[in-house]
Amino acid sequence: MNLAELSIKVRQFADERDWRKYHNPKNLVMAMSVEMAELVEHYQWLTPEQAAHLDVDEHSPIAQEMADVMLYMLRLADELGVDMEEAILHKMQLNAKKYPAK
Amino acid sequence: MNLAELSIKVRQFADERDWRKYHNPKNLVMAMSVEMAELVEHYQWLTPEQAAHLDVDEHSPIAQEMADVMLYMLRLADELGVDMEEAILHKMQLNAKKYPAK
Amino acid sequence: MNLAELSIKVRQFADERDWRKYHNPKNLVMAMSVEMAELVEHYQWLTPEQAAHLDVDEHSPIAQEMADVMLYMLRLADELGVDMEEAILHKMQLNAKKYPAK
Amino acid sequence: MNLAELSIKVRQFADERDWRKYHNPKNLVMAMSVEMAELVEHYQWLTPEQAAHLDVDEHSPIAQEMADVMLYMLRLADELGVDMEEAILHKMQLNAKKYPAK
Repeated sequence: MNLAELSIKVRQFADERDWRKYHNPKNLVMAMSVEMAELVEHYQWLTPEQAAHLDVDEHSPIAQEMADVMLYMLRLADELGVDMEEAILHKMQLNAKKYPAK
Repeated sequence: MNLAELSIKVRQFADERDWRKYHNPKNLVMAMSVEMAELVEHYQWLTPEQAAHLDVDEHSPIAQEMADVMLYMLRLADELGVDMEEAILHKMQLNAKKYPAK
Repeated sequence: MNLAELSIKVRQFADERDWRKYHNPKNLVMAMSVEMAELVEHYQWLTPEQAAHLDVDEHSPIAQEMADVMLYMLRLADELGVDMEEAILHKMQLNAKKYPAK
Repeated sequence: MNLAELSIKVRQFADERDWRKYHNPKNLVMAMSVEMAELVEHYQWLTPEQAAHLDVDEHSPIAQEMADVMLYMLRLADELGVDMEEAILHKMQLNAKKYPAK
């Protein structure tokens, strides 16, 4: 599935729960930043070595926090009408100019 | 492109610049949270009405901040070996149980 | 009590629990950002009107999250050897030049 | 100066610039989280060893970011009518019960 298809699934999920009335972009970025911090929390007291050797799979708590961030990102992109894949590829082009490959 | 394919492109970009030595998960979640805040910054003083009526497209500053978050998310998923699409769909199943549709 | 005196109390609290070994500045800023997000979480779905009319006192959950941020801020200032009051007054002087009073 | 006295100075600064109309608690916590991320940014790519050996004084960029967080914290406490010193001491009492000294 591409990001646009995932975005539609997440919108349907929100619609089925009548949540879109809360999904003002201001609220969505706040909620996304909170989920981000829940991801950060897993790493705050770890050494880099410990951080690099955690055992993480798709169903583990860390992956769930990553998914929570993504769910709000997909909602935000959908509410703003932004094609996320296009935005990512565009930003990579800008970065490639700013930071040329060695 | 699906998330796994995007992830490979972003890994290649990092490899070509010898950046992966900095991409410890602890560093990546910090950097991602900083990009998230740059997204939040666009909305901090806006009313919800103003936030809902911004004109945003794939190349606009807000979409660029979203892309920056996504680039680190894709890098983190890749470093952790997490299939992000699978993680998102799994989290949606958990949410569906926790918050049944009306 | 001034900020320096509060800082000493918080250092003693950490010492009595043998927590200072975790209080590397990198860890402290991560932990502080997580507490900050717990403060943000209280406001994420509220309208500005609702946000302005919450009933908050020194013992309420919102004040506790504010205190959690402050406790890490005081620890960080102490670990860095930064006089927080002096830093605040200095930043106000810089801001006064940048944004002259009307 | 204690936190209440600092808070009054910061309120006067905001009043002189007619900024309090933007200082809804929802906006203030967003703005504070953005300043927090600017503090995190200084540490994101550092090893813990590098982080522990930065040379920081009251006027350095890191102390300025800490001051920016504090300025919004003082504004928030003032807008909410929270005595920040009392909130900190109360939270330390709660923490002392939760995590008894060794």
